[in-house]
Amino acid sequence: MRHSLAGRAESPMQARILAGLRDEGPLSKAQLADRLQVSRTTIAVEVARLVELGLAQEAGPAASRGGRRSTMVDLASDIRFVGVAIGATGISVGLTDGRLGLLTVRERPCDIRKGPEVVLASALEEVRAVLAEAGVERPIGAGIAVPGPVDFHRGVPVSPPIMPGWDGYPVRDALSRELGCPVVLDNDVNALAVGEQHAGVARAAKDFLYVKIGTGIGCGIVIGGELYRGVDGCAGDIGHIRVEDGGPTCACGNTGCLEAFASGAALGRDATALARSGRSAVLATMLKERDGTELTAADVAAAVAQGDPHAVQLMRDSGRRVGQVLASLVSFFNPGLIVIGGRVTGLGHALLAEVRAVTYRSSLPLATGSLPIVLSELGDEGGVIGAARLISGSVYAADERS
Amino acid sequence: MRHSLAGRAESPMQARILAGLRDEGPLSKAQLADRLQVSRTTIAVEVARLVELGLAQEAGPAASRGGRRSTMVDLASDIRFVGVAIGATGISVGLTDGRLGLLTVRERPCDIRKGPEVVLASALEEVRAVLAEAGVERPIGAGIAVPGPVDFHRGVPVSPPIMPGWDGYPVRDALSRELGCPVVLDNDVNALAVGEQHAGVARAAKDFLYVKIGTGIGCGIVIGGELYRGVDGCAGDIGHIRVEDGGPTCACGNTGCLEAFASGAALGRDATALARSGRSAVLATMLKERDGTELTAADVAAAVAQGDPHAVQLMRDSGRRVGQVLASLVSFFNPGLIVIGGRVTGLGHALLAEVRAVTYRSSLPLATGSLPIVLSELGDEGGVIGAARLISGSVYAADERS
Repeated sequence: MRHSLAGRAESPMQARILAGLRDEGPLSKAQLADRLQVSRTTIAVEVARLVELGLAQEAGPAASRGGRRSTMVDLASDIRFVGVAIGATGISVGLTDGRLGLLTVRERPCDIRKGPEVVLASALEEVRAVLAEAGVERPIGAGIAVPGPVDFHRGVPVSPPIMPGWDGYPVRDALSRELGCPVVLDNDVNALAVGEQHAGVARAAKDFLYVKIGTGIGCGIVIGGELYRGVDGCAGDIGHIRVEDGGPTCACGNTGCLEAFASGAALGRDATALARSGRSAVLATMLKERDGTELTAADVAAAVAQGDPHAVQLMRDSGRRVGQVLASLVSFFNPGLIVIGGRVTGLGHALLAEVRAVTYRSSLPLATGSLPIVLSELGDEGGVIGAARLISGSVYAADERS
Repeated sequence: MRHSLAGRAESPMQARILAGLRDEGPLSKAQLADRLQVSRTTIAVEVARLVELGLAQEAGPAASRGGRRSTMVDLASDIRFVGVAIGATGISVGLTDGRLGLLTVRERPCDIRKGPEVVLASALEEVRAVLAEAGVERPIGAGIAVPGPVDFHRGVPVSPPIMPGWDGYPVRDALSRELGCPVVLDNDVNALAVGEQHAGVARAAKDFLYVKIGTGIGCGIVIGGELYRGVDGCAGDIGHIRVEDGGPTCACGNTGCLEAFASGAALGRDATALARSGRSAVLATMLKERDGTELTAADVAAAVAQGDPHAVQLMRDSGRRVGQVLASLVSFFNPGLIVIGGRVTGLGHALLAEVRAVTYRSSLPLATGSLPIVLSELGDEGGVIGAARLISGSVYAADERS
C-alpha cells in the first residue's frame, strides 16, 4: 500500500501548503500562491514534490477566475491518521483521513491503573482492528493522549497521579515501534482542546481554555492558535489549585485541591457517603442496587434528573468551586472562550449554569463582557480527533518533528 | 537635527536586523547574513536602506574570520527614545539610545487622581527638560505606561480603578501630537515586564510573570518572549482575583479582591488602623509624627525593620495572600520565572520569603522544581526602559505599527 511510503513535509513552505489543505479543504494552485505570497511556479514545484511524497494529489481544474485555469490541489486521499484517547476507565481509538475527518471510532472499557503494558496492549488491539477494518496496512502517523502530565518532547508520562506504573514509561516509542509510524504523546486535555479547535465549538477561537471535568480536572490552553504547554510541560494543571484549606486528600497527596472537591471522582465519593449515611434516599437506593461498588458522577447526574436535593447540592458545590478557579484564570488570562468538557458534563446545563454564574460574578466586567462559556461540542471524540491533529501537525510541519 | 528625519523599518527583514542590533549590539554583515539566512548581498541592500532611513550606521571592519573582511553594522548613534512611567504618586521620564541604554532619568511626584490634563502636562514638562538637556529636538518615538487597564490598539485607558478621569482619554494621540513622534501606551506591569526582560533579571526568560505589588497589584505576562495581552487587553489583572469572601471593599467596588487585602494601599490602611487602635505602639508613634495623613507601605517596612510584631504580621498576611494567588497561576501557567516588583518591595526579602514559602508549598513539585521567584533588578527604572522598549518594537518592526 501507498501509506507505508508516504513521507513527511520537507520544508516550511510544504508545511504551510499541507496545513492549508487540512484546515480549509482543497485549494487551487492560484489560491495557494496568493495565500503564501509566492509565485505559481514555486507552488507547482512544491506540490509536485508533495505528490511524490504521497501527501498531496491534484484534483482537476479549478473554477475559472477569468484567466488561465488553475489546478485544484487536495491532500492525498489515502492519508490515514490514528488517534488514541486513553481515559481513566476507557480507551477510544479512531481512524481519520488527512483532514482529520473521523472514518471509524472504536471504544472499550479499560482501567488505566492496570499499567502501561496491559493498557497499551488493549489500545493496540483496537488500533489493529480499526486498521484491518479499513484495509490500511500502516497509518501515516498516530497521536495518543493520556489523562496525566506528559513530557511532550520525551514522549513519556511524568508522575501522573491517577496512572500508577506509567511514570517515565516510553509510551511514544513503544507505540511507534509497534505501528511503524511516527507517534506523538500528549495529555488528554491538550488533545481535547485542539480537537475542539479543529472540528468543534472552538473553531474560530485563537485564545481559549478547554476545561475537562472528568475523573480528574485539567485545562488545555491555546494561545494564538497554538497549544501552550508551559516551561516544564505541565501548564493547565488546574486540578491541583488549592481552593480551600483542609478538605479531603487529593490523589496528589495534598489537601484542598480543586480536584479533591469538584471532580467526577469527588462527586462519586460524596454521593456514596450521602447514600451510606442515609441522608439521600435516592442515592441510597442507587447504592443498594450496585452491590458493593461506589456511586459515580453519572449516578449523581441521574439523581439530579430525579430532583434529589442532595445531588443537586453536590453538583452546585462542584460548579461553584470550578467557577471560583475559572474566575481567577479569566482575570489572569483574559481568554476569548472557555469550553467545558469531560464526563461530568453528563450534568450538562445544570452544572454549566452554576459554573457560569460564579465565573461571571467573580471576574471583572472587561474580561467577561464578551466571554462565552460553553459545553464541548465533540465530547470524547474530541480527544481522538485532537490526538490525530497533534500527529498531523508533526507529519505536515517540517519544523515540529516529534 | 537628524532625528526628525529618521523613519521606521519598512520590511520584516529590516525589522529583524534592527531587533538583532538592539538586543545583541553591533554585528557584522556576515553575522547578520548567517543569522537571517540570506545572502550578504541582501544584507548589504537592506543595511544601506536602513542607513538612509537614519536607523543604522556602518561601524568599521569586523575582525577577520579568514576570508574577506565584513563590515560592522550598528544602530544609528543618534537614535533617541523617550520612556514615560506614570505611577499612582509619581512620574519617571527617561531618555535612551537605540539599544535602550538609559542616558538620563528624571522623576517628580504627581498624584494620578488629578486627571489626564494635569498629569500629562507634568509629564511633558519632564520630557521636554530631558530632551533639552540632551540637545535632542525630537525623539524617534516615545512609550508611556500608566497604572491601569489600557486598550493598546486605541491607545486609551479603559475604566482604570485608581485613575479617575482617565477612562477613554486619548493619551497616545495627545502625546504623539505634542512630541511629533510615534507613541505607544501600555499599562505599567507590561512595561515593567519587558523592561526587566530587556535589561534586568528576566533577560534569559521566555515565559515569565512580572508581579507588581504597589498601590495596586498587577501582572505582566511574557509568553515565548512576547507580551501576552489577552483577548480584551486585560490579561494579568490579578489584583481583582477573589481570595476570600467578604473583607474590605476594593477600588473596583467588589469585596474579596487580592488587591484589597495585600496591596501597598491595603498595608497602609491596615497599619493606620493598628496605629489608631493603639495596638501597635510603633505604628501609633509614626502616625502621630504624620499630622493627619495616613500611614503607607513604606511605614510598614520601617516598622518591620524596627521589629514591630504587628507590622511583621501585616507583611506576612500580604505575602501569604499573594503567594496563594501565585500558586494558582503557577499550576495554570507553569512559568519559568516570577519577578516580584513594585513599591512594596521596600519590604524586600522578608516579603519575598513569605511569598516563596506559600507559592512553593501550594504548587505541584513539577511546576516549581526549577522555578525561581526573585525580586526585580531594575525597580522603577524598569518601567521607563520597558516603555522605551515598547515603542522601539513599533519603530523597528514593520509589522507592529501602533
